[in-house]
Amino acid sequence: MTAIDIPSGSPFGTDNLPYGVFSVGGDAPRVGVRVGGSVVDLAAALGEDVFAAPTLNPFMAQGFERWVAVRERITELVAGDVPDPAVHAVRDVELHLPFAVADYVDFYASEHHASNVGRLFRPDAEPLLPNWKHLPVGYHGRAGTVVVSGTDVVRPSGQRKAPTEAAPSFGPSVRLDIEAELGFVVGTGTPRNSPIPVDDFARHVFGVVLLNDWSARDIQAWEYVPLGPNLGKSFATSVSAWVVPILALDAARVPLPGQTDPQPLPYLRESSSWGLDVELVVEWNGEEVSRPPYRGMYWSPAQMLAHMTVNGASSRTGDLYGSGTISGPERHQRGAFLELTWGGREPVTVRGEERSFLLDGDEVVLTATAPGAGGGRIGFGEVRGRVLPA
Amino acid sequence: MTAIDIPSGSPFGTDNLPYGVFSVGGDAPRVGVRVGGSVVDLAAALGEDVFAAPTLNPFMAQGFERWVAVRERITELVAGDVPDPAVHAVRDVELHLPFAVADYVDFYASEHHASNVGRLFRPDAEPLLPNWKHLPVGYHGRAGTVVVSGTDVVRPSGQRKAPTEAAPSFGPSVRLDIEAELGFVVGTGTPRNSPIPVDDFARHVFGVVLLNDWSARDIQAWEYVPLGPNLGKSFATSVSAWVVPILALDAARVPLPGQTDPQPLPYLRESSSWGLDVELVVEWNGEEVSRPPYRGMYWSPAQMLAHMTVNGASSRTGDLYGSGTISGPERHQRGAFLELTWGGREPVTVRGEERSFLLDGDEVVLTATAPGAGGGRIGFGEVRGRVLPA
Repeated sequence: MTAIDIPSGSPFGTDNLPYGVFSVGGDAPRVGVRVGGSVVDLAAALGEDVFAAPTLNPFMAQGFERWVAVRERITELVAGDVPDPAVHAVRDVELHLPFAVADYVDFYASEHHASNVGRLFRPDAEPLLPNWKHLPVGYHGRAGTVVVSGTDVVRPSGQRKAPTEAAPSFGPSVRLDIEAELGFVVGTGTPRNSPIPVDDFARHVFGVVLLNDWSARDIQAWEYVPLGPNLGKSFATSVSAWVVPILALDAARVPLPGQTDPQPLPYLRESSSWGLDVELVVEWNGEEVSRPPYRGMYWSPAQMLAHMTVNGASSRTGDLYGSGTISGPERHQRGAFLELTWGGREPVTVRGEERSFLLDGDEVVLTATAPGAGGGRIGFGEVRGRVLPA
Repeated sequence: MTAIDIPSGSPFGTDNLPYGVFSVGGDAPRVGVRVGGSVVDLAAALGEDVFAAPTLNPFMAQGFERWVAVRERITELVAGDVPDPAVHAVRDVELHLPFAVADYVDFYASEHHASNVGRLFRPDAEPLLPNWKHLPVGYHGRAGTVVVSGTDVVRPSGQRKAPTEAAPSFGPSVRLDIEAELGFVVGTGTPRNSPIPVDDFARHVFGVVLLNDWSARDIQAWEYVPLGPNLGKSFATSVSAWVVPILALDAARVPLPGQTDPQPLPYLRESSSWGLDVELVVEWNGEEVSRPPYRGMYWSPAQMLAHMTVNGASSRTGDLYGSGTISGPERHQRGAFLELTWGGREPVTVRGEERSFLLDGDEVVLTATAPGAGGGRIGFGEVRGRVLPA
């Protein structure tokens, strides 16, 4: 039996307990929970087959009451001694994509991001479009190319055309970018024609991941009218290996910063708002270049889910939706390099070199923390990715 | 043993042999092939477990050589006597969604449709955007709301705002529409960073379905800038129950009508074009209102697949991509009521009543035929749906 060591100030204390999928050696992947520097094998520790699965989906599908009950059991478990074979050091395990992605939707919920991108993509028009403050604008992305942190990203090729060029050409993107986001994982959905009320958010969303929505800005700019981004985004979306339970985020809830003019329509009005005080850090080749503050986001994830289903669309276990790029009002709070370098015209210095977009070999790491129930801060792990040449 | 009767002129002769998933009584759904008015239970007839599955996915994943070999075995089988328990009358079976949808992408490949919609949605601008003749424009849709023919469609509610209104309101769509399309079902995909060459289309795409991309035009018009359609489409997409094999469509191949000015970039150039001479019929409450000709489509499905993966995006068994609305140059060839009634301003007469968009209780049926190898025409079955009140 082992008493799990949790260093003081660990972002993975008992007020966090994020879930992931891990394997040791060549063994089959299974569900684990992160505690300090350890991963606890839940099938071994709790004796339940649902955790011997290669994704969180079977457990998530069991629903809210089970999420609460299992979290209580894990809390009791790690307060005492855990059987040795159920405990692994994080450094000894391989982490996998923690859930099978059903549908993937990406929103656009930061007013600063939407305004910045509007200015950059449509310089002659109002930056914020008329619908933006009335509904959380979003679109579907490619579920099949969601990958786990640590997966390399090959520079995508595609069509791009600068405004000064007469015709498009084909080749590797020269404006490869990131988008620092949170992703929300649906644990239990609803069938068609059963919209999810905005206040039912925490009964349906199981947890939160960090998400890097890699974006080829040159491909995107040429293709995106009138039906939205496609090839400029669909090559890869990276998520963190740990899913932070919604149940761990009570202490992080904050009011939303806006929504007074206009007031949202009734189906989007929350009794108690799901703004979240999560602070992200963006590291480019090991140097911090940005600290995007999630607390400034205009639309809450509860509003996104209510909107996404209000037309009768069903939702499913494993649905993933992203917040959209998190950008604050200050330059050092911008969550995409497009904004941080103002379309590449104002480079940043990264380890002594001027950079605007990603070069081959560059590595980006997103991390985040939020207030935990214990008075300290809980962590989201990281989402890491390196750019390989086309 | 039973000799299967195939009436002369049947759209389900031995040059078609479409696959579907059926059940009898309360039995488990399984794979069948349609021959005349019969469904042949392939697990029973061929003794292979892969056909006892509730979707075509396991069989599709076996790949092109197996698709060829099984089609040959079925051809031999139905030329002789088939064991009685393996043969059911179509009227005695329930048909199910024939495949589990992985990712769903919808294209926009008809020049007439794109021009018509451009004129209607952006009356003050060039109808065809600059990228349109350079790449097959497309976007991701909601895989989880693809439903099989016969499924009722509840009128979606959502936000809509007429240009004359100061603010949006919430309520049932008053401009509910259809889009008559073909859908292409990927049998075997490729991993990330392995684009599918345009000439490899038929080795990866297993078959073709009819597809009705239900569209709430008022919701769509308000939400779609700048990231494309979302709630205006995500409530339901209906597909036919029969998947016509690509192997049955050789006689339907025709050259594409355009692509000389501009010439497509090299990755989109086909050695032999996959234009398809499929003629659709749209019936509104039993009355034919349109005959959209697929042969006029600008982009081929092979070009769509090559484009969709050229950035390194993976594709998977069960990926579905739609052609976009099929519209020809004549009014009676328009595949969406938005175009057919020119935004509702030029109603059509349906069974003696003036109609622009769909009313509660309306039923739409799409059917289609194409030249078969036997000299006659093969059929695609139907995609049928009735509108229920919100």
